[in-house]
Formats: sequence, C-alpha cells, structure tokens
Amino acid sequence: MSKQERTAITPTRDQDYPEWYQQVVRAAELAESSPVRGCMVIKPWGYAIWENIQRELDDMFKATGHKNAYFPLFIPISYLEKEAAHVDGFAKECAVVTHHRLEMGEGGKLVPAGELDEPLIVRPTSETIIGETFAKWIQSYRDLPLLINQWANVVRWEMRTRLFLRTTEFLWQEGHTAHATEEEAVEETLKMLDVYADFAENWMAVPVIKGEKTEGERFPGAVNTYCIEAMMQDKKALQAGTSHFLGQNFSKASNIDFLDESGERTLAWTTSWGVSTRLIGGLVMTHADDDGMVIPPKIAPSHLVILPILRKDADEEAILNYCRDIKQEIESKTYHGRRIWVEIDNRDIRGGEKMWSWIKKGIPTWIEVGPRDMESGSVFFGRRDLGPKGRKGISRQEFIDGFIDTLDAIQDSILERARDFRESNTVTIDSKEEFYDFFTPKNPDQPEIHGGFVMAHYSGEPELEEKIQSELKVTVRCIPQTDSPEPGTCIFTGKPSKQRVVFAKSY
Amino acid sequence: MSKQERTAITPTRDQDYPEWYQQVVRAAELAESSPVRGCMVIKPWGYAIWENIQRELDDMFKATGHKNAYFPLFIPISYLEKEAAHVDGFAKECAVVTHHRLEMGEGGKLVPAGELDEPLIVRPTSETIIGETFAKWIQSYRDLPLLINQWANVVRWEMRTRLFLRTTEFLWQEGHTAHATEEEAVEETLKMLDVYADFAENWMAVPVIKGEKTEGERFPGAVNTYCIEAMMQDKKALQAGTSHFLGQNFSKASNIDFLDESGERTLAWTTSWGVSTRLIGGLVMTHADDDGMVIPPKIAPSHLVILPILRKDADEEAILNYCRDIKQEIESKTYHGRRIWVEIDNRDIRGGEKMWSWIKKGIPTWIEVGPRDMESGSVFFGRRDLGPKGRKGISRQEFIDGFIDTLDAIQDSILERARDFRESNTVTIDSKEEFYDFFTPKNPDQPEIHGGFVMAHYSGEPELEEKIQSELKVTVRCIPQTDSPEPGTCIFTGKPSKQRVVFAKSY
Repeated sequence: MSKQERTAITPTRDQDYPEWYQQVVRAAELAESSPVRGCMVIKPWGYAIWENIQRELDDMFKATGHKNAYFPLFIPISYLEKEAAHVDGFAKECAVVTHHRLEMGEGGKLVPAGELDEPLIVRPTSETIIGETFAKWIQSYRDLPLLINQWANVVRWEMRTRLFLRTTEFLWQEGHTAHATEEEAVEETLKMLDVYADFAENWMAVPVIKGEKTEGERFPGAVNTYCIEAMMQDKKALQAGTSHFLGQNFSKASNIDFLDESGERTLAWTTSWGVSTRLIGGLVMTHADDDGMVIPPKIAPSHLVILPILRKDADEEAILNYCRDIKQEIESKTYHGRRIWVEIDNRDIRGGEKMWSWIKKGIPTWIEVGPRDMESGSVFFGRRDLGPKGRKGISRQEFIDGFIDTLDAIQDSILERARDFRESNTVTIDSKEEFYDFFTPKNPDQPEIHGGFVMAHYSGEPELEEKIQSELKVTVRCIPQTDSPEPGTCIFTGKPSKQRVVFAKSY
Repeated sequence: MSKQERTAITPTRDQDYPEWYQQVVRAAELAESSPVRGCMVIKPWGYAIWENIQRELDDMFKATGHKNAYFPLFIPISYLEKEAAHVDGFAKECAVVTHHRLEMGEGGKLVPAGELDEPLIVRPTSETIIGETFAKWIQSYRDLPLLINQWANVVRWEMRTRLFLRTTEFLWQEGHTAHATEEEAVEETLKMLDVYADFAENWMAVPVIKGEKTEGERFPGAVNTYCIEAMMQDKKALQAGTSHFLGQNFSKASNIDFLDESGERTLAWTTSWGVSTRLIGGLVMTHADDDGMVIPPKIAPSHLVILPILRKDADEEAILNYCRDIKQEIESKTYHGRRIWVEIDNRDIRGGEKMWSWIKKGIPTWIEVGPRDMESGSVFFGRRDLGPKGRKGISRQEFIDGFIDTLDAIQDSILERARDFRESNTVTIDSKEEFYDFFTPKNPDQPEIHGGFVMAHYSGEPELEEKIQSELKVTVRCIPQTDSPEPGTCIFTGKPSKQRVVFAKSY
C-alpha cells in the first residue's frame, strides 16, 4: 500500500475485483448472506434502492397499460412437463416441496410428514402457472391483449451464489402478456425491452446495449429472447433485463386460445419479460469505486446527509436548528416528481468515521456544518462522484438553490463516466487470432481485469459458440438492434455474417 | 324470488352468507382459486386494492421510524426447534422443501432428486429467521431500537381454504423490532396496534375494537398478543391485525443480546406485528351488499367510471371528448394526497350490463353521459353507497366541484353504516343462560345469521374458554382496551372479573 492512496474499500478493484464487490456490498450495508444456504438478507439501505427501482418501473409498466396481479408461489410438477424446452431449462435447479407438515421424530427432532400426492416446486418463473390462468381468462378476442405484471420472489437452486448477482431466492417482476396476433406480441416484446433500456440509462445511469440473444442463450421455451447488456468495471457483461417473444409455445402447452373476430378458435401469442434484484449488483459494479457505493440520485434512498459538527455544548442546539432548516428547505423540493429525503446524522461518533460511512453507502451529497459555517451562513459541501477531495465551502443559499441541478449533474456525470468506460473498452476485431489474444489473460496465475466488448462478425453456428465458450469463457452477449446492419465475414468460419455481434465474458 | 327485488349477487347475504361472499369476490373480480390447492390468484382489481393498502400502511410504518428489509423465504427446520411454543404453533401446517432438483423418472415423469441434508420449511412467519439476523446486527445499546418491516408472502398449509380469509399462501407485512427495555417494547407493540386501528377505521372504513387476546388465542411464543377485531355482516368477528409483545422469548431462542450502557450483556425485548391480504376479505364482508363489492374511496383502485352512451355515430367523438374533459378535470385533483383515477368504459356492450359490472366491482362513483347530458352540460351521477336508485342528473360543473366532498361523504357514510351495524349487534349479557341462548341458532337445520358481539364478565380460565368454544363455537375475541375497567362477576363461574370482554363467533 506504500505508493498508493488509502481507500475505504480493501481490496481495490484492481487488486481483487470479486472480493472488492463483496466488500462494497458489505460496507454499503446493501445485503448479506443469510443463514439459509444461497439466500440473502437485503438490508434496509439495499431494499430502499429496490423500492425505488420498483416504483419507477411500476409506473412505466402502468403507463404502458399493464396491471399487476399475483399468482401462486407453487407450481405442480405436471405443469412443467407440458413445455419440453421449459422443463429442460428449469427442472434442474428448483426447490421441491414434498410434505405439508412436520412431526416430532426420534430424539426430539422434527421430521417431514404428510407427503403430497404430487410434489410442488417453488416457482423459478411463472409462465406455466400464469398460462393456466390465462387460458381461463381469455375466451374471445375482446379479452386481448391481456397485459399483466407480477412482483414476486422466485427460487432457482444455485450451487455458487453471489449477493444480488446469483442467489437461490431473488426478487423480481415478471410481465406476462397475451395477444391476438404475432405482430402485436413482437411489438410488446420490443416495447418492454425499450422500457428496460430507458429505465437502465435514465434512472440507473447504466448504459446498455439492446439486442437479441443467440439460440443458445434463449429463455427455455422462447422463440426469441431480447436483452439489455451492460458493461461492468471488470469489463464483463451483465445481462440486466430480458424480454421474450414466446410465440405460441406456451399457448399450446396451456391451451390459451380464443375466438377471433371471424369466430375461429385461435391460439394466442404470448410474451414474458423480467428484471430482478440483480440490477442492484449491476449498479454496484457500474458505479461503485474504491471508496464504496455510488448511487444514482434518481434512485437513491436519501439524497443528502447533513453532518453537524458539535464541538461545544453551547453551539449544539443552534447548529442542529441550522441543519433542520436546511433539511426542511431541501425536502420541500421534488426531484423528477419524487420526494427528496435528507438525513441528519447526529450519531456520537468521530466526524471522519461518520463522513466515510456515508461515502461507503454511496449517498449522492453531504454537507458538514460546524460553528464557523453557521456563522458565515455557509456549508461545507461534498459530492459522492467527486469524492472528499472535491469538497468546498459554499453559501447556504447557493447550495439550496442549486440542489436539484447538483443532483442532475451527478446523475449525468456517472452515466457519462459509465458510457466512457464502456466505449473505451469496446473494440472492433476482424481476426480470430486477435480475438483469442484479446480474451486471454496475460498472467494466467493471477486474476486480472482484461477483455471488454468485442464487436465481431460471426456466422451463428451454435457449435461454434459452444467452442468459444469452453475455450475462452466468452459468449455472444447479443446481436445488437440496428437500423443499418453492415454485413461482413465471420472471423471464425469465413462465412457471411449479417452484422457484427457483441462478444464478452459475462456474469 | 317473487316478493323480493332482484339483486346482482345471488344468493343474497340473508339466503346464504358464505356463498354470497364467494360470489361477490368472483363478481367483483377480486380473486379466484388457482389450480394449486389452497392458493389463490389475486386478480388485477383485487391486487390494486392491496397495493393501496400497502402504500398507506407503508407510509405509516415509515412515519413511525420503521425501515423495510427482506429476509429468506426458507427456514431450516432446526430454527423452529429453538422456541418450544413457536414450534407447536407452526410445525403443524407448513410446506416442507426436501429436494433441490427434479429428474426425469420412469414413464417420462419428473421426480424429486437431490435430497437436502436438512429440510427447509417455507416461512409461515419469520420470527426465527429474522431473530438469527437481529442477533448479528445488534451488538450494543446504540444499535437499538431496531425497527424493521418486511412485505412478503407466507405459507401455512390449510385444509379448508376461503379466498382472502384463509389460504395456503397469502401476502402480508410482518414488523419485527428489538428494544433495550421491556417498557419500550410494550410501547412499540401498542403503537403499532394503534396504527392498525387508525388504518382500519380511517382508510378502510372498518370500525374495530382494540384489545388483548386471552392466553389461548395468543401467538405461539408471545407474552401478550393484541388485536383489532371487526364485525362482519354475518355478525361474526374477524381478527384484522395483531401485534405481539414477545418479551425475551425469541431473544433467548436466537441469542439477541447487547452491551447496555453500563457494559452488561443483556437480552433484547422484541415485538412482531402483521396484517395480510385477509384485510380484503374483511373489506368485502364489512361493506359489500347484495349487489356486489363496495370499496372505500380512500383505497379504491379507481374513483370514478364514466359510461358514455353512444347511440348514434355522429355523436360519438363529441361525447367522448366531453367525457375526456371531465376525466382530465377530475384527475387534476388529489384525494388525501393521492392520485385520483378515472376510467372511461367504452366497451361495446349494453349500457345496463356495463353499469352493473362496475356496481359489482364496487367503484365509488359513476356517471352516465349521453347526448342530452352533453347538450345540457350535465351528467347522470350515481354513488355506489346509494345504489342505482340514488342516481340523479346534476350539472357537470357541480359534479366536478363537489367530487372530493362526494368521495369523503361516501367514505364517511360506509364507516357510519358499519359502525351502526356493529353497535346494533353488540349486547351486554349478564347471565350464562342468556349467553347460550344468544349464540344458539334458532333453526339448527339451516344456516342463519345470528349472534353478534357479547360484552360479558368472565373470570379467565382457559378450560372455561375451551368449553364455550366446543359447545358454541364462540371465543373471547379480546379484552378491550379501556381507561376505566368496570369490575363485575363472571357469568359462568361467579368469580370476580376485572372488566367485560368481547365474545363472538369468528373467522
């Protein structure tokens, strides 16, 4: 540590990225491992970010005509069997409920009793159970489109888990819609992809690439899967949201049919789309730095913390009143239609420790207020994106008047920083050799940050993709949406390629 | 049906109350049974009521200093074993996860595989799992009080289920708090009871009696359980929310201790409190009538539906514009700090059917708008609490100007109606004979609505309560909170009684 500055998080990103991630999640009090294998506890600060994500997305879903509903946690095994691709994808890793009672057994230990006739699984996703219900709700073309969303917990039994990124239980939303025509269903699939991209960029300040998945990366049972892909600071990709065009696959499996306008019985076309608490992991890996979390103001649980500096008893009440007035003035404003939340941190701990605890939590702004600040009608003001070195004294009134602009400036600056990072780590590659070299660590004995997004021509064979994955741990992240695809030649096979695709290592 | 009016719901409350309930839930599109035994599907209109309940309660919880967090769905069996009373209460009826995979077995059927070393149960309530976490979070008196709430789904395996009232899976919130002293924990328990009573009366228009449960009705593991009890229209009681003072029972079980100000290690005092989607069942049984649901305006998903009467093509666009203007003017207002939602129902179905569909759903107000209304600048206006016979033509402007007052008047009138109903069905009884007579159906061969709330003196022996329950299906609903308890003599034993308690049949 001799040559470099001390950081609030140890190790730094460069030293050990995966461990840095865990330490940021811990230091920012976002989540922790629970005593239940693979399940996490989402702590209040982390959960408040999720509540803000929910609120914004929910408004967007409602603005696009969707309504929320709630479907059962349990799915009978026989439902899974109805859709062949789906069962292959989800039967592997699920929690199976086989009994409905516990009894006291030998040695005072509880044992399962009351075996079920048909085991149930805890939903890993709800296409099959919602499909059964849609089949009842949909009778005629007048019942379409049916646009439903569910906020829920889901369970996928994972062997290796990481907080937010991959946990056995996680929270998400799953949209499920049914339409009279293929065109409408495709339009819905792409509309929700746009909603996700809009939310990621304009609320989470996470730039994303919209595109289509290759066959091998499709949702089990989908005709097409679309996704938004973001670049993390270790240059890997994170799939931040997916939108699936399911064709008539699930309509066939669950018999979702309707009488069309000409009186013919027809199968509906369905879609599903979801984002999860994984987004919070994406936030950390996009914005956090070696001093801890950085939260975009538009989804921050608190926007400002006021740190009163209480040196002498005599000042105390006057300073606190000065702080309370500032809190009140700031909270009387709104920020993009939402309430602004201000904390006054009056804990009896050292000033430095207190400031750093908020820096680690990623609060967008803070002010320190001591007796001299009060006397001169000013505040000592820090921005999380600029760090403690960027602190400066400014007049109280200037601070208050400029507060909304400050939040917008922070939001813009961290989006810009993330976009710059992605752009400077995205390369165009036209040969297989260069491709393999780019994705090969230079020091195989030690983990290091390398790689990035590679834009390359590729002819689309699933076997080829498997080979690249097994050799380099690199996959096609998506075939980007573009109005002007430029054809070329696959760098692996020399066959024709319609457009460049995005290759990367990924979470 | 000869002598009586036709009603939108068949049967009526008087004819068959339990069936009337199911038919209202169905006709109002609140929920339906799912293909999974004991689990319900909460439909969009019912879920929107739940979202409004959540929003209001969540604001109340936050205003009283609580923060939301999220804990695992699964609880290891061994956790339950730690609190003896708790395991007796909850091990009986729970979903047990024993495997984490499905494999293709004989005949192409999926079978459970990957047996777990320790089975998990799906949380029926979270005291034990949250207690384990609290033990880690709480080290010193500075960490207290810890005030946490969780919005979640829970599972209790029920043999007989009824939509909203008793389902295997339901949605709820569970507050869990830890305190340094007994006094503080008791104060918290009672504070949250007040929050529930305030919410029930002032938002749901459901009058409640606040009180303490007797020993036999306590939450398994609690020192005291407090509740709010409401009277349904069949004169039975519904427990609408509970708040538990847990003493140090769960602190002992999970080892939640802290260093107090004098440096001594001390066990914390904890509480828990919850309400669930059961509240929606309570809303139905408090307010709905023989024409369907009645939703209190303060938690209604929509406040007004506009029914355009489109007789001739020529009028259509003009009438729709007239409707849209009204919608816009009404939606520009706010109602108790919340958005107002207005629907325009432009479906191509008969006007009468359309109006009745909204009456059954319980929308607080509706207006019909035809060519003549438009010409005269008026609307034909109906209030759900007054029914279709109360409809009247009034000027458009008068309708708009008075809209908020109208909503308040409806909210007040249904609360008043419910309060009157409870009062006229609450009696004071001073003899055992009269008590038994009051709770005995007059026609044992046919279900009938009888009984009510009985205020009687009672000396408190658990065996006596069991006897009354087995003979009459009547229990002590609560020992009401009162500042001036009037002592008396138990009507069953002649022993002294501190105050009258509330007896009733219940859900």
